[in-house]
Amino acid sequence: DEIREFARGVVESEIEKHAADGLGRVDYALANGGAWVVRHSEAYDVQRGNWFLLNARNGVHHNADKMLKPSFGEPGQCFPLKGSSGFVQIRLRAEIVPEAVTLEHVAKSVAYDRSSAPKDCRISGWLQGSNPNSVIDTEKMFLLTEFTYDLEKSNAQTFNVLNSAGYGVIDTIRFDFTSNHGSPSHTCIYRLRVHGYESDSVSVMAIDS
Amino acid sequence: DEIREFARGVVESEIEKHAADGLGRVDYALANGGAWVVRHSEAYDVQRGNWFLLNARNGVHHNADKMLKPSFGEPGQCFPLKGSSGFVQIRLRAEIVPEAVTLEHVAKSVAYDRSSAPKDCRISGWLQGSNPNSVIDTEKMFLLTEFTYDLEKSNAQTFNVLNSAGYGVIDTIRFDFTSNHGSPSHTCIYRLRVHGYESDSVSVMAIDS
Amino acid sequence: DEIREFARGVVESEIEKHAADGLGRVDYALANGGAWVVRHSEAYDVQRGNWFLLNARNGVHHNADKMLKPSFGEPGQCFPLKGSSGFVQIRLRAEIVPEAVTLEHVAKSVAYDRSSAPKDCRISGWLQGSNPNSVIDTEKMFLLTEFTYDLEKSNAQTFNVLNSAGYGVIDTIRFDFTSNHGSPSHTCIYRLRVHGYESDSVSVMAIDS
Ligand SMILES: [K+]
Ligand SMILES: [K+]
Ligand SMILES: [K+]
Repeated sequence: DEIREFARGVVESEIEKHAADGLGRVDYALANGGAWVVRHSEAYDVQRGNWFLLNARNGVHHNADKMLKPSFGEPGQCFPLKGSSGFVQIRLRAEIVPEAVTLEHVAKSVAYDRSSAPKDCRISGWLQGSNPNSVIDTEKMFLLTEFTYDLEKSNAQTFNVLNSAGYGVIDTIRFDFTSNHGSPSHTCIYRLRVHGYESDSVSVMAIDS
Repeated sequence: DEIREFARGVVESEIEKHAADGLGRVDYALANGGAWVVRHSEAYDVQRGNWFLLNARNGVHHNADKMLKPSFGEPGQCFPLKGSSGFVQIRLRAEIVPEAVTLEHVAKSVAYDRSSAPKDCRISGWLQGSNPNSVIDTEKMFLLTEFTYDLEKSNAQTFNVLNSAGYGVIDTIRFDFTSNHGSPSHTCIYRLRVHGYESDSVSVMAIDS
Repeated sequence: DEIREFARGVVESEIEKHAADGLGRVDYALANGGAWVVRHSEAYDVQRGNWFLLNARNGVHHNADKMLKPSFGEPGQCFPLKGSSGFVQIRLRAEIVPEAVTLEHVAKSVAYDRSSAPKDCRISGWLQGSNPNSVIDTEKMFLLTEFTYDLEKSNAQTFNVLNSAGYGVIDTIRFDFTSNHGSPSHTCIYRLRVHGYESDSVSVMAIDS
């Protein structure tokens, strides 16, 4: 009976986490929460070549926010970028102290082909402020983390940022991938998430750290 | 091995329940099952003030059925009503003997802010019959249950009705909230569900009880 | 502690499978993966009689791909066919060696009524090639499997094909149902999936087997 209760407790907390968007962590890059894609490298159309020019607003494809939405385990719920390297720049829903980022691809068990998954990745972040399209001084950009997406691990992989409190707040991140898992034509981004917290006392914390 | 089998059994039944709309209970207020919102208090737009007048059909906002649909763990999949009190009136898919209602808000672990969750709530029910917009004699309305939505408990909270068989069948419910968890501007309704059963022998049962 | 670890392992693998489209198996009939409905028997409208003629393209209703999409546990996320027998013909996303098919209906615990579930079923498959609408020699059609959908079992039921490697590759399947679970008016198809693998060495395998 003790074991029974214990097992039920484990199951309930795991299912609760699963039901809570898979990770049970707040995502400041969720499209539905007010985040959006500001820029991205050239998009790719598997069937007809490039539809980038036809459907873009200010260079952002109308499907680009697929990268900031849940995929619910479905193959194809991603946004394809041309080639094996590229980038996505995201305005977060609020100014936050960043703590971690999650890159998600489709689960191995249901995927037709995973050669289009990103491999070597880098995340930068900065405080863009009122004009999301203005050019930012590279001195104000921080390297948040570098990582390799591993096809053998769980499909949603979370990476802590290097020095969480050291940057002050950010409102924009840029995701660069320099390689993928083999596809010469395109790289598919299922979902990017950004974790952290909003803070009114950030300047104090930055001094403390 | 016995423990192994037991653990697997617990997991499977819990996941089955989770996959079955989270609760594994029939919902007679599901939009996709034929229920709809008949009336509601004034809607609220976080960004631009009030969009109520622009998008309403007979006083019902075109997004109001978000309250009768799954949220799949996503923050923002709710319908915002103005202020800290208000109401929603729902036509059920069928005449039922009501047994319980469920109020769901977003999970704590992924929410940006939960001050917009409803707090003190009341559910009434009645048999409206053929004209869903006609005014009903208040004598024919029953108080089904009163409850307080608790931010510390599971995000979908179910409350039994006070006297299930005593009302006969109903086809309409009204959800009133008189307070929320702190937001002065609006209250967000993620989902309302109504549980019970259809019955051909309701009058007999009502006499028995 | 050992038990704790074991229980957590079971839970995690079961949830991973659940998150991976419920089964953790590749589906070559997924609409979002490039499969589509080629033909079907007459559609049915519960409220107004038959809307088949109004919304069809080449005889395929614009909602027919609901049969090739996840239902996420929601009642009503199905496509209704007229009567208690009928068929659906599906072009798969690729040429595959078929291994199994899955027929899914809504979960018992949340269903209003399950008399519209299919009962006695048969799946045929063949290699249609470049013209999906041309008539195929019945000699080239294979019986993949016959089965009875059981309302008492799990809502997604998987059936192995009779002689997997023996057919060579196929790119089209036809699902016939000859009875349902009681509804005289219609039969509701929630989702069909086709499992198998793509192979460059199929002819060799067919000879070996
Ligand atoms: K996605
Ligand atoms: K909802
Ligand atoms: K479906």
